[in-house]
Amino acid sequence: MSERQRARVVIENVRPSVDCGQFAAKRIIGDKVVVSADIFSDGHDALAGRLIYRGPGSSDWETAGMKSTLNDAWEGEFTVEKLGSYYFTVEGWVDHFATWQNALRKKFAAGQDLSMEILIGAGIIDEVAKKVGGEAGKEMAALADRLRSENVIDKTVSMALGPEASYLMRQNPDQEFAVRFEPELEIRVERPKARFSTWYERFPRSASSDPSRPGTLRDLQALLPAIARMGFDVLYLPPIHPIGKTNRKGKNNTEGASAEDPGSPWAIGSQEGGHKAMDPKLGTMEDFHNLIRAAAGFGIEIALDMAFQCSPDHPYVREHPQWFKIRPDGSVQYAENPPKKYQDIFPLNFETEHWKSLWEELKSVAYFWIDNGVKILRVDNPHTKPFPFWEWLLAEMRRDHPDVLLLSEAFTRPKVMKRLAKVGFAQSYTYFTWRNSKREIIEYVQELTSGEMREYFRPNFWPNTPDILPEYLQYGGRPAFIIKLILAATMSSNYGIYGPAFELVENEALPGREEYANSEKYEIRHWDWDRPGNLKDFITRVNAIRRENPALQETTNIRFFEVDNEQMLFFGKIGSNGADSILVVVNLDPANTQSGWIRIPADEFGINPAQPYLGHDLLSGEKYIWYGERNYIQLNPHVVPAHIFKLKTRVRRETDFDYFL
Amino acid sequence: MSERQRARVVIENVRPSVDCGQFAAKRIIGDKVVVSADIFSDGHDALAGRLIYRGPGSSDWETAGMKSTLNDAWEGEFTVEKLGSYYFTVEGWVDHFATWQNALRKKFAAGQDLSMEILIGAGIIDEVAKKVGGEAGKEMAALADRLRSENVIDKTVSMALGPEASYLMRQNPDQEFAVRFEPELEIRVERPKARFSTWYERFPRSASSDPSRPGTLRDLQALLPAIARMGFDVLYLPPIHPIGKTNRKGKNNTEGASAEDPGSPWAIGSQEGGHKAMDPKLGTMEDFHNLIRAAAGFGIEIALDMAFQCSPDHPYVREHPQWFKIRPDGSVQYAENPPKKYQDIFPLNFETEHWKSLWEELKSVAYFWIDNGVKILRVDNPHTKPFPFWEWLLAEMRRDHPDVLLLSEAFTRPKVMKRLAKVGFAQSYTYFTWRNSKREIIEYVQELTSGEMREYFRPNFWPNTPDILPEYLQYGGRPAFIIKLILAATMSSNYGIYGPAFELVENEALPGREEYANSEKYEIRHWDWDRPGNLKDFITRVNAIRRENPALQETTNIRFFEVDNEQMLFFGKIGSNGADSILVVVNLDPANTQSGWIRIPADEFGINPAQPYLGHDLLSGEKYIWYGERNYIQLNPHVVPAHIFKLKTRVRRETDFDYFL
Repeated sequence: MSERQRARVVIENVRPSVDCGQFAAKRIIGDKVVVSADIFSDGHDALAGRLIYRGPGSSDWETAGMKSTLNDAWEGEFTVEKLGSYYFTVEGWVDHFATWQNALRKKFAAGQDLSMEILIGAGIIDEVAKKVGGEAGKEMAALADRLRSENVIDKTVSMALGPEASYLMRQNPDQEFAVRFEPELEIRVERPKARFSTWYERFPRSASSDPSRPGTLRDLQALLPAIARMGFDVLYLPPIHPIGKTNRKGKNNTEGASAEDPGSPWAIGSQEGGHKAMDPKLGTMEDFHNLIRAAAGFGIEIALDMAFQCSPDHPYVREHPQWFKIRPDGSVQYAENPPKKYQDIFPLNFETEHWKSLWEELKSVAYFWIDNGVKILRVDNPHTKPFPFWEWLLAEMRRDHPDVLLLSEAFTRPKVMKRLAKVGFAQSYTYFTWRNSKREIIEYVQELTSGEMREYFRPNFWPNTPDILPEYLQYGGRPAFIIKLILAATMSSNYGIYGPAFELVENEALPGREEYANSEKYEIRHWDWDRPGNLKDFITRVNAIRRENPALQETTNIRFFEVDNEQMLFFGKIGSNGADSILVVVNLDPANTQSGWIRIPADEFGINPAQPYLGHDLLSGEKYIWYGERNYIQLNPHVVPAHIFKLKTRVRRETDFDYFL
Repeated sequence: MSERQRARVVIENVRPSVDCGQFAAKRIIGDKVVVSADIFSDGHDALAGRLIYRGPGSSDWETAGMKSTLNDAWEGEFTVEKLGSYYFTVEGWVDHFATWQNALRKKFAAGQDLSMEILIGAGIIDEVAKKVGGEAGKEMAALADRLRSENVIDKTVSMALGPEASYLMRQNPDQEFAVRFEPELEIRVERPKARFSTWYERFPRSASSDPSRPGTLRDLQALLPAIARMGFDVLYLPPIHPIGKTNRKGKNNTEGASAEDPGSPWAIGSQEGGHKAMDPKLGTMEDFHNLIRAAAGFGIEIALDMAFQCSPDHPYVREHPQWFKIRPDGSVQYAENPPKKYQDIFPLNFETEHWKSLWEELKSVAYFWIDNGVKILRVDNPHTKPFPFWEWLLAEMRRDHPDVLLLSEAFTRPKVMKRLAKVGFAQSYTYFTWRNSKREIIEYVQELTSGEMREYFRPNFWPNTPDILPEYLQYGGRPAFIIKLILAATMSSNYGIYGPAFELVENEALPGREEYANSEKYEIRHWDWDRPGNLKDFITRVNAIRRENPALQETTNIRFFEVDNEQMLFFGKIGSNGADSILVVVNLDPANTQSGWIRIPADEFGINPAQPYLGHDLLSGEKYIWYGERNYIQLNPHVVPAHIFKLKTRVRRETDFDYFL
């Protein structure tokens, strides 16, 4: 038996928590972290609970109160104001004074003799006074004396139950048998862009408006005003390093490239350098710095690709053969997916005995670009590198560069994707690209935004990527592009498109594949960015709506609502109040007009069903006057297959033209 | 960086686990414990996983294989054969040899040149051989040599992929970078009665058939054959200790008992002794031993009440006043629920400075009765004593008396009830007593039997207790009693009734209360056990069905099915195969005949919808020939408000009269 066993309070189920506290829950600067816990004890004594937390680099606990809600559940909150890791936990104890107050209140109301009760209460106060000591102890002792000496029982009782006594005792509690929940839980605080970002991916080498020459960083810089006008705030570039020549792939990923073929930017490394070098065809490091600066002027951040793999010509192959697998004939092992061979790519061997120098080198690659102004990295295939490597690298970066964000490009099995998010990737690619039916979309988005996953996994929705032109886009035409854009941009606060293929409704695929025909991965393209049918204006409108509506700047606030048509999806992003919420109705069928009755949960949006209210479609600007919960919607995919509504309800008075705020 | 970071495998979500491994999952002797885990790694290498476990008192791990099922989930199992605590966890590692085999198989099928591959594989084998050493190492080295020297590639490949090589490598894996999941998880193994028990509660003092004198243990002994005939295997007695005189309660819990009032058995302790004494009015310790022996002869165990509270006359009050709260006037604090006072009861003060001697004394009470042959204790109001006390006491008892089972009588808030089960109570009272509607019942039973709760909380369903005559029974008449009995006995493998009040359909309550009028708690009753309308035969039938059908001897195997009537409930207890399953249809309306279409999930029960099958009602003995999934049921509560079906489907051949097994 140990003294610890005298503590009667139990604390369970402290949230947010990921994998029993093994990983951090994620938040952004300025968030209120709502902490819940179950706190209870035997019997019926009053309990007290509090939240303790400490910010990055601090070892001093700060405290915040907790309130019991229902059925032994308690809640408290604190605000996170610094980048880095906060730690928190919960304490609870039996509050004997409050227990006594509760009993006294009832006995007084029942008119019982209280002389003995007052002595018991004074005794409790004396006990606490002894333990607490100091000024508060003296005040308590004086209070106990006053309780004992006051002869008018009404006065004694009001003294015992009054705010002064309650405050004194609550502020200086007897915590001798307080329980502290273990383990301490972590909140990882990142900058707001971790939660709300609008990505545009573009190959610099296809950014030239002059068909006679490849594009450069300077050409890309010239596109910044147009990209900014469309409303993007992250411009993500595929690798910009020198490209290998050995076994270079030709157009459409064919063997045997010609002298003109530029090769895949992911075949990184040539005699001109490796991961820390700039492809001279794209420009210089100075051009790169200029691009970053110019982009910042437009509110755009440059995101770089971090693809930890090498072409056979990469300097590492000569200088650090120990970081590769060597075959019995002395050659370096190329990438394989048996029986397929990818002889233009040498994977790094993370099982090498020289793993430490490899890890350090890869870290130095990331740091090199960070030192050159990059704060967002999109990591290529992180799931083919060990989790402990990412866990280590991300911890290093959090310490040295807490403002850097990594996006995990792991199109792989669900648990692998989740683990990468747990070990610290700020955002993650998802299966959104292949979720098309109403049921698929609802199930998947609910999975992403409920349970522990909502605490650590920040989805980034991409309708297309240079690797993926999904069937839905191949066959659905322009309406399909619009539908996927609306879904990505309104369901997820982080989304991106690979352009200009997306906004130009480029939908030609390799036969029977979900890959682009004549992909920019293997050749240089020259785009007519203004070609008819392009979606630039539409995207501009949608991104403006995102910017103007905070409810679209988070993802876990999504709720699905009823619409009686299997081809239609109806959901809301719930704002801090009803008027800030956004309601979205989408026709998922790119071929046909669909219609149905939506059901707006009136209560939740503060709607008086007896009065008209306004549905303002932010996409078209049209306004609909509605009554009641059920309203009819018809969507023609060849016009606009969606509405993005803001509701305006009468809030001031019931007079004629003052209906709507 | 540490060597540990070279281990690439991740193990997550190991089950069964309760509260992140803080508490044990419960099983009974002979159970197969199915362990699941998520095991995965970066990339696409083959992995190996295994389950390690050790039994009570053993520090040597035993191992069992694990197989991957779907999406990185793995499963293995072990059988528990001893009472006490088993510990288990899961290990995983990258299997380089199997990875190489997989690649070789594909490359061979594709007709690729394999000379280099064979050398790589031989190299892998040599590596492992070095690490493993010994006989196995030698065998491996020989295998590698054979692979290198064999010139016919078909033979080399079949040697490399053959069972001999696979077995050798799998049995002696390279575990240098194996990962072991932490923490170790606990399985608490109890005897089968923990899961399957049929309780009968009876006051010995009301067991006399002679109305001129109170009942005794001997009278109770005379009832054993009848109790056994009804099918009960636990006979639970309210406290049998001397009853206090001071402030004794009279009939119907009134103040001021007369000299004839026997007092409440829960007001424990008088000059004749305390918790270790026998009330002389009930008999002697010898009578008690005889009762236990005689009961055992009928397959019945005697369960005692363990109520840790005292009457003012309890010897503890004189001998150990330090275990009570003393009021300022020197008197002992009585029980309160302000403004109510219970001056016939002195609660023990678990916050006393002398808590260690109090804990030891209470332990000695339990051990006293265990030493006198009691193996089941029903604990009165455990939620008013500290959790750490129970955790300690139950750990002590598991060590010294692993065959003793405790039932928690905690009719209190959900999380408190759960915590008591977690700290070690084998069975728990539930809210079943107040769950009457279809929705209430389904929700509650699903809560009990899903998630982590199914691992540690074993419900014991009581339609009534001496403290509770629920409204449903007060107003529903005999059909209500039958309905609740059927529900308790078929939904939960542990259930009990307070008799003979239950089987005699006693439904007179104190006005406006859910308490019995003229409760046996405060007076001695003489019952006519054969009075008309009694349910003895019906209970006998139901308990026989429970005994004969293993599917009814567990609780977590329940599944609810569809019936299109809100007053009807349809559920199944799923057996080890379809033929062992039990299907129950109940009319929850005690007043009216109800009918509806049930939907039997044909697939799950191996039913060919094109052929007739038999629904055999074990209650009535009637047989129904059914076709297809939907069948019509009508239940008159005044006849029998339920069916308990066993399905018999054609299994052997399709000839005439051999339809049914």
